[in-house]
Amino acid sequence: MKATVIYGPRDVRFEEREDPKIIKPTDAIIRTSATCVCGSDLWTYRGIQRIAEPTPFGHEYCGIVEEVGSEVKSIKPGEFVIGSFFSSDNTCPHCHAGYQSSCVQKELVIGAQAPFLRVPLADGTLVATPDIPPDDLIPSLLTLSDVMGTGWFAAQAANVRPGSTAVVVGDGAVGLLGVLSANQMGAGRIIAMSRHESRQKLAREFGATDIVSERGDEGVARIKELTKGVGADSLLECVGTQESMMQAIGSTRPGGAVGFVGVPHGVQIKGEELFRTHVRLQGGPAPVRRYLPELIDLVWKRKINPGKVFDLTIPLNKVSEGYRAMDERRAIKALLIP
Amino acid sequence: MKATVIYGPRDVRFEEREDPKIIKPTDAIIRTSATCVCGSDLWTYRGIQRIAEPTPFGHEYCGIVEEVGSEVKSIKPGEFVIGSFFSSDNTCPHCHAGYQSSCVQKELVIGAQAPFLRVPLADGTLVATPDIPPDDLIPSLLTLSDVMGTGWFAAQAANVRPGSTAVVVGDGAVGLLGVLSANQMGAGRIIAMSRHESRQKLAREFGATDIVSERGDEGVARIKELTKGVGADSLLECVGTQESMMQAIGSTRPGGAVGFVGVPHGVQIKGEELFRTHVRLQGGPAPVRRYLPELIDLVWKRKINPGKVFDLTIPLNKVSEGYRAMDERRAIKALLIP
Repeated sequence: MKATVIYGPRDVRFEEREDPKIIKPTDAIIRTSATCVCGSDLWTYRGIQRIAEPTPFGHEYCGIVEEVGSEVKSIKPGEFVIGSFFSSDNTCPHCHAGYQSSCVQKELVIGAQAPFLRVPLADGTLVATPDIPPDDLIPSLLTLSDVMGTGWFAAQAANVRPGSTAVVVGDGAVGLLGVLSANQMGAGRIIAMSRHESRQKLAREFGATDIVSERGDEGVARIKELTKGVGADSLLECVGTQESMMQAIGSTRPGGAVGFVGVPHGVQIKGEELFRTHVRLQGGPAPVRRYLPELIDLVWKRKINPGKVFDLTIPLNKVSEGYRAMDERRAIKALLIP
Repeated sequence: MKATVIYGPRDVRFEEREDPKIIKPTDAIIRTSATCVCGSDLWTYRGIQRIAEPTPFGHEYCGIVEEVGSEVKSIKPGEFVIGSFFSSDNTCPHCHAGYQSSCVQKELVIGAQAPFLRVPLADGTLVATPDIPPDDLIPSLLTLSDVMGTGWFAAQAANVRPGSTAVVVGDGAVGLLGVLSANQMGAGRIIAMSRHESRQKLAREFGATDIVSERGDEGVARIKELTKGVGADSLLECVGTQESMMQAIGSTRPGGAVGFVGVPHGVQIKGEELFRTHVRLQGGPAPVRRYLPELIDLVWKRKINPGKVFDLTIPLNKVSEGYRAMDERRAIKALLIP
């Protein structure tokens, strides 16, 4: 098969690779129906995150089960499935506590930007949809593999409750789906921080009630102004830089919560400062597997449409154009069709 | 009156000062029945926290209301009252949210190691007991002014629930009362980290089920061993150093919570590391005022006896000996009687 491999900064190739095979009896092979480019991959694409050697790329996927290992019980060939970017056994204590992305057996699923993909621990990682989905649902189902689950985790870690005021830092696909998640969880007011018109528009469609274009200290001041000096109840930090983290903590009311899902790069938090603010902080790779049944149900019943974040659809063999478009912020998120 | 003043490292004096007076119509003057030495004052006593000039010392107090300003409505002369180390109006949005120690009008109450004390914002800061307490309840009531409320906040921020496993880092008075708090909140297992026999004994009396004497990475390894590799649900960080914070985060299960109440000194938390652990973090100066009604009730009904942390009782004019004894860890906490 031909598949996506990253060689170094801004060097993404679509080239011949061996077809994936069942290696362990708990594996499954998926024929991918759709895959996409993740904002977190831009850290590598831009050379901020280094790689030692050419690496198969992509970790978001959904598709038809092609083959399963001899120990796989809950998933059958022919089913349409979605899985997390981290495989999990779904039986260890961390999985039972709902943190499947900290599973003791976890493995990062890589090489999803390909027509076929090996998924380890298939029983604990993959969830089948009620039926083969109609084509128009596939983009939304694909988002459940990472980006939608990540926005959902941000909102949950930020303790969004009915009626609460939520602020979303970051207008990438995760931030936008953080807006959708906060809305779904009943937030009374959702302030999206964005300075890009097309993203502001989608944020409003997903439920944002206010848009703030200021950043850093000015952004904090604007949030304080909008909340009568109090600060917001819930902050969704969906970027991962020092500035965005400080902006999030500074915008939160004492006793409020920050959920951070932007993979931190060089972020340092001073204990003294956090102490002074009374802000609660939780983040990490989203335990997407925990949310799959609930989110599949919401998409299946067409109650949410997270697939709207894809504003660029291209054939998988044009994958490098997807990276370019996201790197240059011409696209929010690129959908890749094998 | 004669009162306590700190001049510099290890230089605490008991000397003539002016009697406190009502300055604002919202003030009250308290005749202190008892006061004490706080572990957090040791940072200043040891010269780690610098002071610019001689400063009245002490912030824990209870006693009889001597006089109130013209606008004070809820507190009357002759009543026995307890107040937080931070004054609060108890009406601002932060107070309403239960974070009175972030009150928009907050002031640190200083100079409590004295026979008389001015407390600002008396209506929002002080809570009267049902009656004048018997003498033997006074030590326990005094702890509600800071140390007991701080242990309680640590347990709450660490999300202690019935049946959960809690670990307490720090065997000072706050840590020991963190053990009592976790026990009161129904923790199924409470692991106290201590290497001092007298403190271990009191920890067991307060409800600790296990004692761990290892520290740092060895301490983390021991907690992992005791929890079958999983980590604890709740960590109470009651020290405030880099080592104690890392020990706390490292001992927590993914999705578990750290409540940190040891005033952080030079603590730096790496965003990447916190992200990787899925640990939830909240700390700050305890919102003692929030807990006063509930904790007064528990002490009044003799359901808890936090006053046991005082293992040294001395006359107020011997206050410098109280500091020495705590600095040298000869005493857990020194009670001072005017």
